[in-house]
This record gives sequence, C-alpha cells and structure tokens, in this order.
Amino acid sequence: MEINTETQVCGVLGHPVRHSLSPAIHNAAFQHLGLNYVYLAFPVEDVAHAIPGIRALGNLRGCSITIPHKVSAMAHVDTIDPAAQHIGAINTIVKSDHTLSGHNTDVSGALRALERADVALNGQQVVMLGSGGAARAVAFGLALQTPIAALTLLAIDDAERQRLADDLRANAACAVDDHPLHADTMQSALARAHLVIHCTPVGMDPHPDHTCIPGELLRPHLTVMDIVYNPMDTHLLKDARQAGCRTIRGLEMFLHQAAAQFELWTGHPAPLDVMRRVVEALLS
Amino acid sequence: MEINTETQVCGVLGHPVRHSLSPAIHNAAFQHLGLNYVYLAFPVEDVAHAIPGIRALGNLRGCSITIPHKVSAMAHVDTIDPAAQHIGAINTIVKSDHTLSGHNTDVSGALRALERADVALNGQQVVMLGSGGAARAVAFGLALQTPIAALTLLAIDDAERQRLADDLRANAACAVDDHPLHADTMQSALARAHLVIHCTPVGMDPHPDHTCIPGELLRPHLTVMDIVYNPMDTHLLKDARQAGCRTIRGLEMFLHQAAAQFELWTGHPAPLDVMRRVVEALLS
Repeated sequence: MEINTETQVCGVLGHPVRHSLSPAIHNAAFQHLGLNYVYLAFPVEDVAHAIPGIRALGNLRGCSITIPHKVSAMAHVDTIDPAAQHIGAINTIVKSDHTLSGHNTDVSGALRALERADVALNGQQVVMLGSGGAARAVAFGLALQTPIAALTLLAIDDAERQRLADDLRANAACAVDDHPLHADTMQSALARAHLVIHCTPVGMDPHPDHTCIPGELLRPHLTVMDIVYNPMDTHLLKDARQAGCRTIRGLEMFLHQAAAQFELWTGHPAPLDVMRRVVEALLS
Repeated sequence: MEINTETQVCGVLGHPVRHSLSPAIHNAAFQHLGLNYVYLAFPVEDVAHAIPGIRALGNLRGCSITIPHKVSAMAHVDTIDPAAQHIGAINTIVKSDHTLSGHNTDVSGALRALERADVALNGQQVVMLGSGGAARAVAFGLALQTPIAALTLLAIDDAERQRLADDLRANAACAVDDHPLHADTMQSALARAHLVIHCTPVGMDPHPDHTCIPGELLRPHLTVMDIVYNPMDTHLLKDARQAGCRTIRGLEMFLHQAAAQFELWTGHPAPLDVMRRVVEALLS
C-alpha cells in the first residue's frame, strides 16, 4: 500500500470501532484491485462535527456509519436513498464533489445474500425474528424489492415490532403480520414458512450457545438465514444444517453489504472472494 | 504498511496539496520506526469545518497546515504556542484528547538547521531578505530564541516589512533595522553581515535561474542559508559556494520543520536521515 497525495480515504465512524472488521476487508479489496484507496477506523462520538468534517476534508470519499450513529447521521447528509428513508437509518455515506448521500447497504446485502444462495422468493412465506435496525433493513428489502407473498414478524419488543409492521403495511404489496416472539407463535409461523431469517442478537459472541428457535421446529424444506456472523456458524445454523435445512450464514449478508459500500465508493465491482477470505480468517 | 482499527492518522490540510512532499516523508518515517501511523493529503477549502472534523474524528492525531490556511486555521484551535502567536500563523495542529493545539515548526526548523550546521549565532549580525510568513517565522526564532546581536530586514513590501520590524522590536533583545530591498541597501547590509538568510520565493521552480543577491556581494566569511528547497541547489546557493561561503540548503529547514511535526504527533525522535533521503530522491 503506497500512500500519496492522491490517495482516496474511506473509514468507519462509530463508537467503539476497535473490533470493526471493515478496515481489513476494504483494504484487502483495494489492494487486490490496485486502487489508490485506504480505509481507516474513526472512533466518533460527535457526528455533528465529524460528518461536516468528512465533507470538508478532500480525498475523503465516504464512510461506513455504525452503532450508535446510524440514525443520527441522517441529519447531516444531503440526500438519503429511498430504502434508507424507509428504514430510518443509514450505514454508508458517499461523497461526490461536496455532496453527501446516505445509503443503507444492509438492504442490498441481505437481498444479494439470498440471491447468491439461489433462494426462490416468488410467492414465498417468510418469517423474520427481531425488529431492530437490521430487521428493518431486511424486512423492507424483502417487502419492497422482492415478490414474496407474506412476511411474519416475531419479536419481543411490542412497540418496535408494531411500528415496523405498520411501516411495512403502508408500503408493501405482500401480506404482513406480526406477533410477540414465543414458542406458540414461532411454532405456528414456522409450520407454513419457506424462509426464516433470524435478525436478533441471540447467539452472538460471547453467547454462542444460545438460539431463539428450538431445533425441533426446523424441518428440511426450510431455508434458514442468520444475520449473526460472529461466530460464523451459530447454534441456529448448526441446528438447521442438522435438520436438513438450506442455510445462509450472516457472513454472507455482512460481506454483501460491505461489497455494496465498496462499489458505491469506488465504482468497481467488489472482489467478493478476497473479502470473504479476509473475514473468514478474522472470524475463525 | 498494515492499516488496522488502531492506526493513527495525520495529514496535510491546504489547497492545493497535490505536490506536497509531506505524505512521502512522514510515511517513510512512520514505517522506518514501525509506528502504526499513516499520513494523508487532504485538499481543503473550508477550514472552518475541516478542523472541527479533525477534532471529532478519532484516531486523527494531528495535521500539517499549509497555504492558504496558516492564518485562518488559528481561529479553530484551542491553544497556540507563543512562537506561533508572535508569527501569527500555524503550520501544525496536534490533537490530545479532544483539544487542538497550534504550533509553528518553521521556527524550530530554521533554528535546528542553523544549529546542525554549527553556525555560531552569539553576537552575530544577521541579514534576512523577505518579510512574508516564512520570514516572520525565521525572524522571530532568531530574535527571541538566539543571542544574535542584530537583525537587518530587507524586503520589497514596505508595509509588511515595517510590521514585522515593529513586532520584532516590541519583543526582541537584539537590534532590528529594516530597509527596502535594493542593490544599495543589500550592499551595505551584507558588508557587515555574518549570516544571510534568503526568505523570498525568488529562485524557486519554475524560475531556478533567478536570485536576489548579486554574486559579487557574497564573500567567503558569510554563511548563506536559502529557505527555497526546490530546486535543492538554488542559484543563490551555487553562487555562495563559488564565493567560498558556508551554505545551508532550504531542504534542511524543511526537513527539520517536518521532524518537529513528527515529534509532536508521535513523541518519537524523527529519523532525520530517512526523511532526508526521501526528500532528496523526490527533488532530484
């Protein structure tokens, strides 16, 4: 990596960012394609000054936005893409001249992960667990950009879940229903589901032995996607594989959202296999 | 250079910065010492947002300030060192926690260049040509921090020269006089000088054949320092060497001001020889 006066700069804004995988992934991708870019970590508390700083500092091409700024950052950009507007959060800023645009690549990340796994979505029944920021991104992606028949939301936070369900019903063509997340609602929802997407933090390190879904509810016709990517093989995914389900790792959604960012900043197709090897090495 | 989430970031803020030598110099020094730092170029027009951005973006350790922001940047930092206050310009910002301090390392750069060349200053008569920003830094360094006997300023801009002379007289122990820069004043000033420092842009690329000082005024007892460093061997320095004078290249002042920045940002002694080799390679 040879830095010079033309080097373009990207980075992640959040707090904390010490454990972010993004610098390793994006720098490997830049180097693989021989692009004069570098990706840094910027721990930030004060987004109200950090984002105007991104605008004012030339050669800064854009940034990833992560916790806790995905919502508050929206007030400091000039335009927001429609998907991110629905979700109410951005995870990416792209600078073009002095204009900042906000995007949410979790949407395309989830959809590309499903597409690459050849999951048929036309007319399907989808169950999602969780109603937080990532769940909103996946749900709006599925409901607005795919031909699924129905989306069932199961989540423990009633207010958050109902708000997501209402927002979806106001915009989506598919049927949307929502229920509290417990054994009965899960059993009934999974009985008629084709695809289940787990969007809660359950099973994430340091609690890799946890899972929301009792193994006996998983049957071979199901496709199971977990958005948790650390560990790469969650308890849920292991159970699903054992039950004969097709599985999609959270790693795939994480990779595809990063690839979409990479493409927004550089205009080049992301070298997905290079990026996947970096993440697998870091997580294993 | 391995970038990770702990990598500290420095950079140059100015407009334009495309031809800055600083990224090459500082990155070579970071790498030589194995420091997890990177130095970038940030073309900036809007300092009023760029500098608060430096404050808000964590891992940004500081920056160089160059033309046209050396004066306007002062309004956006929290503290300014006394030398920079006298000069009325900063060329360096250092961040510590969320506090920004402004410095002017042209002062110590000029003084270290003289010191390393073993130039005796005690009781000496010094002539300086020019009264711009660099001249102010050199003049205040000499007048306030060395035991010279007298400083004669020769410059074409009467108002700028007189302001510098007045500011010096209000603060310095040495005698200060000032005159318009022309053949007669130069002849009379150089006749009794021990050290002459050229601080105008004359002789800089793309006009390397120009010089302010007629060769016949240079006599062997003189030490001649040129702050122009591109080309490394200016017409003035060639004339001075031919006349038997001791010479100090502008490169030395440039290097020592960069070394002082490096030390402010990292707390490590700068690897001066590594940095010198980089600059010499870039300029030759």
